[in-house]
Amino acid sequence: MAKVAMLGAGFIGDFYTYSLHGLRSRDQVYIINDRDESRARAFAKKHRIPEWTTSMESAVNDPHVELVVVGLPNNMHYEAVKLAAAAGKPVLCTKPLGRNATEAYKMLEAVEKAGVLNGYLEDLVYPPKTVKAIEAVRAGTLGQVTWVRSRETHPGPHSDWFWTKEISGGGVLLDMGCHCIEIARNYIGKDIRPVEVISVADTLVKPIDAEDNALGWVRYENGAIGQFEVSWTFRGGMDLRDEVMGTEGTIWINNFLRTGFDMFTAGGKRGYVAEKAETEKGWIFPVGDEVAELGYYNMFTDMFKALEKGSTPLETFYDGYIVNEIMDACYRSAKSKKWETVKLKVWRGKEKAGPISAIREYDKDHIFMKEERMPDGRIKVILKNKKTGKISQIEKKK
Amino acid sequence: MAKVAMLGAGFIGDFYTYSLHGLRSRDQVYIINDRDESRARAFAKKHRIPEWTTSMESAVNDPHVELVVVGLPNNMHYEAVKLAAAAGKPVLCTKPLGRNATEAYKMLEAVEKAGVLNGYLEDLVYPPKTVKAIEAVRAGTLGQVTWVRSRETHPGPHSDWFWTKEISGGGVLLDMGCHCIEIARNYIGKDIRPVEVISVADTLVKPIDAEDNALGWVRYENGAIGQFEVSWTFRGGMDLRDEVMGTEGTIWINNFLRTGFDMFTAGGKRGYVAEKAETEKGWIFPVGDEVAELGYYNMFTDMFKALEKGSTPLETFYDGYIVNEIMDACYRSAKSKKWETVKLKVWRGKEKAGPISAIREYDKDHIFMKEERMPDGRIKVILKNKKTGKISQIEKKK
Amino acid sequence: MAKVAMLGAGFIGDFYTYSLHGLRSRDQVYIINDRDESRARAFAKKHRIPEWTTSMESAVNDPHVELVVVGLPNNMHYEAVKLAAAAGKPVLCTKPLGRNATEAYKMLEAVEKAGVLNGYLEDLVYPPKTVKAIEAVRAGTLGQVTWVRSRETHPGPHSDWFWTKEISGGGVLLDMGCHCIEIARNYIGKDIRPVEVISVADTLVKPIDAEDNALGWVRYENGAIGQFEVSWTFRGGMDLRDEVMGTEGTIWINNFLRTGFDMFTAGGKRGYVAEKAETEKGWIFPVGDEVAELGYYNMFTDMFKALEKGSTPLETFYDGYIVNEIMDACYRSAKSKKWETVKLKVWRGKEKAGPISAIREYDKDHIFMKEERMPDGRIKVILKNKKTGKISQIEKKK
Amino acid sequence: MAKVAMLGAGFIGDFYTYSLHGLRSRDQVYIINDRDESRARAFAKKHRIPEWTTSMESAVNDPHVELVVVGLPNNMHYEAVKLAAAAGKPVLCTKPLGRNATEAYKMLEAVEKAGVLNGYLEDLVYPPKTVKAIEAVRAGTLGQVTWVRSRETHPGPHSDWFWTKEISGGGVLLDMGCHCIEIARNYIGKDIRPVEVISVADTLVKPIDAEDNALGWVRYENGAIGQFEVSWTFRGGMDLRDEVMGTEGTIWINNFLRTGFDMFTAGGKRGYVAEKAETEKGWIFPVGDEVAELGYYNMFTDMFKALEKGSTPLETFYDGYIVNEIMDACYRSAKSKKWETVKLKVWRGKEKAGPISAIREYDKDHIFMKEERMPDGRIKVILKNKKTGKISQIEKKK
Repeated sequence: MAKVAMLGAGFIGDFYTYSLHGLRSRDQVYIINDRDESRARAFAKKHRIPEWTTSMESAVNDPHVELVVVGLPNNMHYEAVKLAAAAGKPVLCTKPLGRNATEAYKMLEAVEKAGVLNGYLEDLVYPPKTVKAIEAVRAGTLGQVTWVRSRETHPGPHSDWFWTKEISGGGVLLDMGCHCIEIARNYIGKDIRPVEVISVADTLVKPIDAEDNALGWVRYENGAIGQFEVSWTFRGGMDLRDEVMGTEGTIWINNFLRTGFDMFTAGGKRGYVAEKAETEKGWIFPVGDEVAELGYYNMFTDMFKALEKGSTPLETFYDGYIVNEIMDACYRSAKSKKWETVKLKVWRGKEKAGPISAIREYDKDHIFMKEERMPDGRIKVILKNKKTGKISQIEKKK
Repeated sequence: MAKVAMLGAGFIGDFYTYSLHGLRSRDQVYIINDRDESRARAFAKKHRIPEWTTSMESAVNDPHVELVVVGLPNNMHYEAVKLAAAAGKPVLCTKPLGRNATEAYKMLEAVEKAGVLNGYLEDLVYPPKTVKAIEAVRAGTLGQVTWVRSRETHPGPHSDWFWTKEISGGGVLLDMGCHCIEIARNYIGKDIRPVEVISVADTLVKPIDAEDNALGWVRYENGAIGQFEVSWTFRGGMDLRDEVMGTEGTIWINNFLRTGFDMFTAGGKRGYVAEKAETEKGWIFPVGDEVAELGYYNMFTDMFKALEKGSTPLETFYDGYIVNEIMDACYRSAKSKKWETVKLKVWRGKEKAGPISAIREYDKDHIFMKEERMPDGRIKVILKNKKTGKISQIEKKK
Repeated sequence: MAKVAMLGAGFIGDFYTYSLHGLRSRDQVYIINDRDESRARAFAKKHRIPEWTTSMESAVNDPHVELVVVGLPNNMHYEAVKLAAAAGKPVLCTKPLGRNATEAYKMLEAVEKAGVLNGYLEDLVYPPKTVKAIEAVRAGTLGQVTWVRSRETHPGPHSDWFWTKEISGGGVLLDMGCHCIEIARNYIGKDIRPVEVISVADTLVKPIDAEDNALGWVRYENGAIGQFEVSWTFRGGMDLRDEVMGTEGTIWINNFLRTGFDMFTAGGKRGYVAEKAETEKGWIFPVGDEVAELGYYNMFTDMFKALEKGSTPLETFYDGYIVNEIMDACYRSAKSKKWETVKLKVWRGKEKAGPISAIREYDKDHIFMKEERMPDGRIKVILKNKKTGKISQIEKKK
Repeated sequence: MAKVAMLGAGFIGDFYTYSLHGLRSRDQVYIINDRDESRARAFAKKHRIPEWTTSMESAVNDPHVELVVVGLPNNMHYEAVKLAAAAGKPVLCTKPLGRNATEAYKMLEAVEKAGVLNGYLEDLVYPPKTVKAIEAVRAGTLGQVTWVRSRETHPGPHSDWFWTKEISGGGVLLDMGCHCIEIARNYIGKDIRPVEVISVADTLVKPIDAEDNALGWVRYENGAIGQFEVSWTFRGGMDLRDEVMGTEGTIWINNFLRTGFDMFTAGGKRGYVAEKAETEKGWIFPVGDEVAELGYYNMFTDMFKALEKGSTPLETFYDGYIVNEIMDACYRSAKSKKWETVKLKVWRGKEKAGPISAIREYDKDHIFMKEERMPDGRIKVILKNKKTGKISQIEKKK
C-alpha cells in the first residue's frame, strides 16, 4: 500500500487519481498539490484526499508520502523531479519526460544519482490489448517486425498551456509523438538502437506557432521502421491506432474509436461520452472503461509492483530520455528536410542488431518467394534460382 | 480488505481468483475448497492461497473467512449456500443460481432468513461497455427500450459436468440463457415484470440429452421483448453480443470477438489465445484483458463495496431467482410449444408498467410518423390525420 | 437486349430503372406507367425513357415491350400480373408477391398457365456478398446449416401507402419479413420444407394499425431455424444483416451500415447519403453503390439471362408464393400465440429431409464432443462413452 | 457497343475481361493477344472470345477492333501504345503507365500526337466507395483535405515478371505506389501541384533486387500530404485502405479485408476465396464481387462513356505520367535521403494554390481554437487573443 503525493490537479492528475483509487485498489493519493489553491482544494474534496497544498516542496517532503507522481505541465517536470530526488523518494513522471533531450537527461541523472525508483508514465504501452500484443510479438507470433505504425490524433488538447510553446516545449510532435515512438520501440524491441529519423512538422490548421500535425519515420538498426502520425486537427473523436507488420503476421489495434461499442441516439444526451468525443448525437463510439482501456491500471500496477519488489518498471526515465532524443532529431529533421541521426548520450541496448531476414529454402536449387491460389483454383509458386538469380513460376501439384 | 473462501477449484474458481487477486487488489482468497485433494492443493499453490481443504464445511466455517464465493457445479450450489447461511456469512454464488426455480427459491429464502449479504455473480451485466450502456439507457439516451437481443454462443463448455443433465440441471438454455435473460432485464428495467415466454430448445448437433441450442423471447409487461440466442455449437470462438433497440436510439456491443484487436499469424503460436478461441493460426481476435472485459473486476468491486457499506449489490439472489423462473417457463414452453406465463413467488418491482409510447404531434391536425431524404434530395414527411386516421405524405420545404 | 415496361414510377421503380440502365447495360426501359400523369412524365424525362402512359394495359400491351416489370403498391400486383399473363409476356414482380398467400397463388397460377417466364424480385438474395456466401454454404464450407438470422430494420417506409393496411396488406412483417424469410430459405436449402412458425407482431411505437415490429422463427423439416427480425422503428439508418450458423462454420454479413466506409463530418452536408440514413452530420456509414450492394444488378442479370436462355431464374413466383404462405402462418401465430403449420398448396422440394447430424467418432469406444485449450496451455477433450453414455474429460497429449 | 483487342492473357487481362463481359455488358473482347500461343488460345476459349493471335500488331490492326486495352508486363506498354497510336485507335493502358517518367512521357506524346482517346486504367480511384468519397470531398463534406493515407499491401505479386526489375522497372513502389499516389491526388485535388517527395524503399524480406517495402510522403503546393505505404511482405491477405483527413471531417475506407463479410470455417474449403487471401480455414474475409469492389466496372464504364461521347475519361495518360514523375522523384529520394523536387515536363493544373486555412473568429477579440466537454460535464473553450496572441481557456455557459 502506497501513499502518493500527486503534483498537478489538472486533467492528467484527475485521470491518474481515478486510476489510483479505482476498483479494489489498496493505494491512496495522500496529498494533492496545485499552484491554484481553489483547484487543489476542490480536487482534494472530489477525490477524498486527506491533504492539499499549493507548495510542491511541502507535498514532496510530507513525511507520509512514499511516492511522488508528477502530473504537471511540461515546464515543471524537471523542478518536481529534482525535489523528489533530493528527498530520496521514488518518482513517476508523466509524458513527455522533458521538453527536450537536454532537460530529460538532467532528470535521468538526478534520479539515478539519487538512486530512487523512477517510472515513465507512458500509459499507451500498457493498454490491455497492447500488453497482450507486445507479448505475442515477443513470443514470435509475427516473425520479425518490419514496420510499426502508431497514430494518435484528436481535435487538440484540453488545456491552454499545451498550446503555448514556452510551457509545453513544442506542439503535437512532442505532445503525442512521444506516445507513438515508445509504442513502436516496444514492438520493434527496446534493445534495438534507433538510428535516424525523418519528420514533417507543419502548422496546417490552428492559429498557433507550434506544429499541429506531424509525421515521422524512425529507422532502427535492423532496418525496421517506426512510423508516427500525430495531429491536433483530426475530426471525429480520438483516434488511437497501432499497426504492426511482421514477416509472419500482422496486428491491428484500435484503442478508442472502434472497440465493439456502437451507440446511436436521435435525442442527444447531454453528458460526457468519451475523451475528446466530438458529438453527442448520431452514431458515437464510447469505450468501456477509459482508465482501463488507456492502460492506466496496468501502468500503475507495474510501477507499484516494482516499488514493492525493488525491481524496475517496464518504462523508466531512461526510456523517456531515449524518446526525447528521437523527438529532438525529428525537430531537426523537420527543419533540415533530411534524415537526422539520433544522438544518444547513453545507450543500454544491443551494440549491433543484424538485418531482418526471412529467406526460406524451397529445394536445393531454389529459394521460396511466394505461393498464391488463382481465381481458377490453380496454385502458383514463385521461386528464385540460387545460382542464376532467375525468378520463375511453377504450378503446384495439389 | 476481505478474506475469501473459494469453493470450487475448476475453471470458474480460477477465473474468480484471478479477478480477486488482480491489479492492486486489497482482497485475498484465504482458503480453497475442492473435493479433489490434488486439485485443491495445486490451486492453492498456483494462486498463493494460504489454506486448502476438501471439506466445504471447514472452508465456510474457517474463522478467518469473511466471505464465501461459490464456484461449484450447479448441483452443489444449494448445499454451499445453506452452509454459508448457517454460518451467518455473506455469500456470492455463480450463475445460474439454481438448477431450477424451486432450488433458487430455497437459496433465496436461506440467505434472507439468515440476513446475510447475498450476491448473484452474473458477470455479463458488469463488462465496462455494458455498465456504460446501461447507464446511457437509464439516462434516456435511447428513449424507451423496445427490444434487446443478447447472444452468447461458443463451441461448448469446458468441463464434463456441464454436459451431464443431472449435475447441471439442463443444457445451454440454463448454462447461458441465464446471462442473456439478466442482460435484457437490465436494459429493459429490472422493475418491469417479465410476463410470458416462448422458447425453442433443441439438441441439433451434439450427442447429448440436454439441448445444445436454444432461442427465446421474454415479453415484459410494457411490451418490450428480451430475446436470447444461446448455443454450444457455434464455430469461430466465443460470440458475446448484445443489441438494444429504443425509440430514440440503438446500442450494439461486442464483448469478445470484434473489440478492436485483430491478429494474423502464418506461423501458428502454441498457446492460449482467448477463452474458447478455436484457432491458433490465421486471423484471430483476442480480447485485451479477459477478466476486465467479461466484467469480473467490476462485479467483485460492486460486491465488496456493498459488503463494506452494508448496502445491496446490483445483482442479488432475488435476481437469480427471477432468472430461474423465466428459464423454467422457457423449458415448459419448449415442450408445450406455446407462450407460457412466468410464475413469480415473489415480485419486488412495479405492479403495473404502461405500454411503450412515442407518439409525437406534428401540427394540430396531424401526428408525425416519419421524415426521410430521398435520393433526389427532396425530404418527404409522412403524417397521420388525427381525426380521419388517414396517412398521407407531404414534401418538406427546406 | 430487352425492352421493358416499368409499371410504377415510385421509389422502387426508380431504383429498378437505375439498375436496368446502370453501368454498360444493354437493356432499356421503353415505357413507364403510372396512374399519376405528372409523375409518369417526370420519370420518363429523368431516365430518358421513350414512352410514358397512365394506362397499365397500354404499357403491358405495347408491341415493343418484351418484358413487364411490376414496381407497384402491393394491392396492384395481381392485376398487373394478370395483364402480362394475358399478353403472354414475361413478367417480373417486386416483393412481396401478394398481400397474402391466396393472392400469391392466383398470380402463380396465372403465369404458369400462360407459360410465361416469371421472376420474383427478391433483391436481397442477390447482393454480391450474399451470392458468394450462399455458394460457400452449398459447397459445404459451413457444414450443415442449423440457424439463420436475417434482420432488416429501418425507421419506416418512404411512401404513405405502405402504412395503410388495405393497400399494403400488412405491416413490417409483410414488407420486410418477406426478405428475411427468403434469405434464410436460400441458406438452409430451398428444397427443405418449411414446417411451422411462431411469430410476434406488435405495434409498439407508430400510431398505425399494422404491426411496426415483428419477430419470427420458421422451423424447417431438418430442424434448422430461420429467424427474422424486422422493424419500422429502428434508429440509426438501415440495418440489413444476416448471420448463418453451421456445424462447421459461421457467416456474418452486414449489407449496409458497416461495410468498410466510415465518414465523419462536422460541417453537415446537405444531400442524400444512403437509403434511410438518419443523419447528415457526425459519423455516417455510406455504402459504395447502393444498387450493386442491394443486389439489383445481380438480380436483373439473372432474370435477363434466364429470359435469353429460356431457363428459370433463381427466384420465381413459386418462391414468392412459399414466402407468402410462411407469412400467413406468421400472422396466424401472432394471434394464436402458438406454433402454426405452414400450409402449402404446392411443394416442389424434397418430400423428406433427415435431421442435421454431425456426430464424430473419437475412438472405437467414444464419441468426440469437444476440444479446448485452457488458459494454462493444457488441452481438454470431452468424450462420450458409446455404450454407457457417460461423459468424461481427458487431457490431450501434445 | 465496343469491340476490344485485349493485349495480354495474364492475371490482369483475365480480370479486365471478366469486367468487360460482366453483368449486362454490351461490350465484347473481340481478339486476345499473347506471346504464348497456348495461353492465348485457352484464354479465348474460356472467355468465348472470337479471335486470338500471338501478334500484337495483328490484334491492334484487326479491322473489327475499335479499342485497344493494354494488359501487358510493364516493359511492353510503350510498344503496345505506339502500335495503337499508329493505328489511330483509342487505347487504355494498365498501371503504372511507364517503367519511369521518360517512358511515360513518350507514351503521352504518342497518343496526344495521334489524337486518340487515351485512358489510364487506375482502377483504385474507381471503387464504388472511393467514387462516393471523392464526390463527398469535392462537395466540401470534409472541409479542406490536409492529409491522405493510402495503403496497398499484400504478400507479393502473382507473376514472375513483377519480381524481375528489368521487366517491371522497379519493385513495390512502382507496382503499387502508383495506386496510392493517384488515390491521394484525387482526394487532394488533381489540379494541385505535387511539389516534393521523401521516400523510403527497402528490400527487407524477399531475396530480390527491387524494394519489397516502400513508404513515401508527397507534399502538395497547398501543404497537404499524400502518404503511401506499400508492401509485398504483408501477411493476412490484401490490405487496401485509404484514410482522408480534412479540417471538417474524416473518411476511412477499407476496400478489401473488412467490408462486412466475415466467414469462419473449421473444415477448410479448397477453393479461391479472394485475391491474395492467405488462408482457407479459420476466419476469412471475402469481398462480395471483386471486379466491382476493385473499381473495374466503374472504370470501364467511365472509359467507354468517354469513348462514346467523345469526352475525356477521369484518368488519362497525362495522369499516368504525373504519377510516374512522382515515383521517379521517390526513387531519387530513397537514394539521396532528402526531399526531392517533382519535375514535371507538363503541368495542366493550377499555377498557384494557397495554403490550407480554417481560422474561425470567436468574438471580435478572439480566434476560436477548440471546444471540449470534460468528464465532469463542463465545457471548455480554448481561445487565442488576436492582438496579444495569448492562449487562454474559458468555461462555456450551457
